[in-house]
Amino acid sequence: DSITTTDPRFLADLTQQILADPLPKHIISVSAFKKPHLHQILNLAHQYRLCKIKKQPLNHILEGKVMAMMFYEASTRTTSSFSVAMQLLGGIVQKCDPDTSSLVKGETLSDTVNVMASYADVMVIRHQEKGAIQKAIVNTHTPVISAGDGTGEHPTQALLDVFTIREEIGTVNSLTITMVGDLKNGRTVHSLAKLLTLYRVRELRYVSVPSLSMPPEIKNFVKSRGIKQEEYTSLESALPDTDVLYMTRVQKERFSSEEEYIKTRSAFEVTPKLMTKAKKKMIVMHPLPRVCEISPDFDTDPRAAYFRQTEYGMFVRMALLTLVLGHSL
Amino acid sequence: DSITTTDPRFLADLTQQILADPLPKHIISVSAFKKPHLHQILNLAHQYRLCKIKKQPLNHILEGKVMAMMFYEASTRTTSSFSVAMQLLGGIVQKCDPDTSSLVKGETLSDTVNVMASYADVMVIRHQEKGAIQKAIVNTHTPVISAGDGTGEHPTQALLDVFTIREEIGTVNSLTITMVGDLKNGRTVHSLAKLLTLYRVRELRYVSVPSLSMPPEIKNFVKSRGIKQEEYTSLESALPDTDVLYMTRVQKERFSSEEEYIKTRSAFEVTPKLMTKAKKKMIVMHPLPRVCEISPDFDTDPRAAYFRQTEYGMFVRMALLTLVLGHSL
Amino acid sequence: DSITTTDPRFLADLTQQILADPLPKHIISVSAFKKPHLHQILNLAHQYRLCKIKKQPLNHILEGKVMAMMFYEASTRTTSSFSVAMQLLGGIVQKCDPDTSSLVKGETLSDTVNVMASYADVMVIRHQEKGAIQKAIVNTHTPVISAGDGTGEHPTQALLDVFTIREEIGTVNSLTITMVGDLKNGRTVHSLAKLLTLYRVRELRYVSVPSLSMPPEIKNFVKSRGIKQEEYTSLESALPDTDVLYMTRVQKERFSSEEEYIKTRSAFEVTPKLMTKAKKKMIVMHPLPRVCEISPDFDTDPRAAYFRQTEYGMFVRMALLTLVLGHSL
Repeated sequence: DSITTTDPRFLADLTQQILADPLPKHIISVSAFKKPHLHQILNLAHQYRLCKIKKQPLNHILEGKVMAMMFYEASTRTTSSFSVAMQLLGGIVQKCDPDTSSLVKGETLSDTVNVMASYADVMVIRHQEKGAIQKAIVNTHTPVISAGDGTGEHPTQALLDVFTIREEIGTVNSLTITMVGDLKNGRTVHSLAKLLTLYRVRELRYVSVPSLSMPPEIKNFVKSRGIKQEEYTSLESALPDTDVLYMTRVQKERFSSEEEYIKTRSAFEVTPKLMTKAKKKMIVMHPLPRVCEISPDFDTDPRAAYFRQTEYGMFVRMALLTLVLGHSL
Repeated sequence: DSITTTDPRFLADLTQQILADPLPKHIISVSAFKKPHLHQILNLAHQYRLCKIKKQPLNHILEGKVMAMMFYEASTRTTSSFSVAMQLLGGIVQKCDPDTSSLVKGETLSDTVNVMASYADVMVIRHQEKGAIQKAIVNTHTPVISAGDGTGEHPTQALLDVFTIREEIGTVNSLTITMVGDLKNGRTVHSLAKLLTLYRVRELRYVSVPSLSMPPEIKNFVKSRGIKQEEYTSLESALPDTDVLYMTRVQKERFSSEEEYIKTRSAFEVTPKLMTKAKKKMIVMHPLPRVCEISPDFDTDPRAAYFRQTEYGMFVRMALLTLVLGHSL
Repeated sequence: DSITTTDPRFLADLTQQILADPLPKHIISVSAFKKPHLHQILNLAHQYRLCKIKKQPLNHILEGKVMAMMFYEASTRTTSSFSVAMQLLGGIVQKCDPDTSSLVKGETLSDTVNVMASYADVMVIRHQEKGAIQKAIVNTHTPVISAGDGTGEHPTQALLDVFTIREEIGTVNSLTITMVGDLKNGRTVHSLAKLLTLYRVRELRYVSVPSLSMPPEIKNFVKSRGIKQEEYTSLESALPDTDVLYMTRVQKERFSSEEEYIKTRSAFEVTPKLMTKAKKKMIVMHPLPRVCEISPDFDTDPRAAYFRQTEYGMFVRMALLTLVLGHSL
């Protein structure tokens, strides 16, 4: 950290790191990441975070580079996070609005992507259909970062979750991490569980109603990496040893009756009272938006990390954009 | 004005001014402004205007700073004005589109604000509901500028109105300022009337149909500051001594019949013929958009200041953004 | 090309060129271009293309300049192309969204334009109504570039089409250029045919069903410039000598029956098989989006120039923006 960002050695050093362990060309799934990739991304994100605090200029890093964003499903926070990340590094952001565009005229996703790819150095795409992005970019030379594909993956969310844990607690190893809510349909927890197997976590705990429990393929994957897992139906019993409490939204549509939904919702709600039973030094995370999973009364508790989590996301995206564009820095 | 913007003394001097009379953290109401604040804002706006004319670079002033915009009610001109202002100062603009975002998922305004606040150094928010912004930002550390809250206030509009008068006529003191149109519902004229009480204006004149006259609370406020006011039902009789004619839009919905609306509209229309009865050296203003309040035939008259008014707005917003972000320049 | 972009002589030289042959103030129709204008635009576009390849910085060229975009008809690719072009040159882009803006309040197009003109150094406007832009900008001092007005013209599309031919083949002279599809309603081919009359092309060929053939006024204009033209109803017979095959979209709505549409569509489809009958050294162009005019199987053929064409468009817009803003560089 002794070299400032404007020192030519900063970029030279960065380029060398990138050449040593190049990331996959397209960032579509966390399964493609190896431990050195994670190190590279999270270390650079940490460095960028320090630069922001110290007000060191960063807008020369991606000067003249263009990021195109294609969001077929709206997401203010993901769009904003990527967009601000790119601009803080001096890059150009070009948003496409697919609703009002050529889709109406019958253009394929692949064609739209290739048109935007002709202007862009990197593309960020979200699509509502699992696998659609991967299929569309078969002939695309510009690197693509997925910002989520339906029930598929949302790789940068998983990265920012791990980064949040590392920045808040100092390490990911030896932690008990408890995931709560709709573990069946939540792509966030699937990607996170997979990514955590690259670390030596102590235990993963899953808290949900039986109908929304973690799918067997995720549990088998975690098991194959030798990581302890346990399932709970009560938040209160899973809470005491928990270092990281990862809350997710439970959607009303998943329940057979309004009554059952309300019962589940309040059984799994984080409140100041409930949190007296948790460790003093632990964190509560949430990918946001929240509805009733965490009481606003808890927001001022120092353990409430969910708004800091969104800021960490920006640094992770800054790091990822730099590394993906690294070959041309 | 002898120091150029790129001289380090320019920013140092600016910082000193800011420390001497810091603005309120959030800019929600004109009532919070004292005379030194107004001086500071309008002087800096004037300086920026000169810089633009002389093509002096300004894009280092807010380099690396992020402005988030959340408009829950569309407004092309206010959005554009803030956005261009921020970018001319070298800052980054991040627009959020609340229609297609997390609101649908049940997120509170306060949560949405706090998520965006984690990326931003300053936020500009418009909301359709009076008081909603103030309520949402109770726990927000990032400074917020209101761009209007329903029938409440639109503080930057009032500032740009005063700035327009100052730049066009050279002073605000000793002027007769006549406001015309829907004075009952127009938040623009309410904020302007309040702000003008900080100056020694000669007289405020209100021209409207009786059902749309200036509300008692505004008239009482103006009276309490010792400023002369008079009400008119005829534009022609209020016109002769007027230095500033401030026109506002009258909406059809405010009238009981189409007939009454059309009658009022034409009685209060600024035309080249009517304006032969006005002073040679005076100005006509309008917050825009106009419908039928000012005939397009008058546009080429040098007294027509309404399109220049929108440009003045940009300089006022540049000044305000600088001063609000001043603590971190 | 030996002077780098950061050399002060680069801008000085550019300014001199601009003064020698100033473009029309507003860019509304290709008819206003003379040969020296075309040379100037396409040479600068070529120079910018080389700069991009060599990674020479260009973001000082339009630093501090503001481009306002008003698209009353959505067009992702045209918007993106202009927007990225402006930003690569260091300029500021301000998009207006007319759907949700003052139009609802009854503002005229002319007023909206003049409001935005007060912030902008150049405006890019698309409108669905032929002639609407020209009418709205009568009193506008800021230069305006049309991005298409309904069935009227789309001048920058025609420029990028000519630029594509020049960059891909090296010259426009002595070529056989074949236009295919809906030649009656396609504004693209109308503007292109007009613009090509400034060059010594060998022949223009028009392939369409009789009901969608090139309108007499275009054919008369081309004829008056002494350029050979021929009409075909079969793509296969027009293909063999063709140097540039310009495909356009045929809309279902233009046909009396679904059956007739499908028949036409497949008769005019570019496929790898059909293209064995074409020259080895020729190019296929398309303004995009395509539907079924070109089989995706042809995309990997080196003669498929349509995705490169969109990138050329960016360089043409960079050149045009520079030249239009040239008086104030």
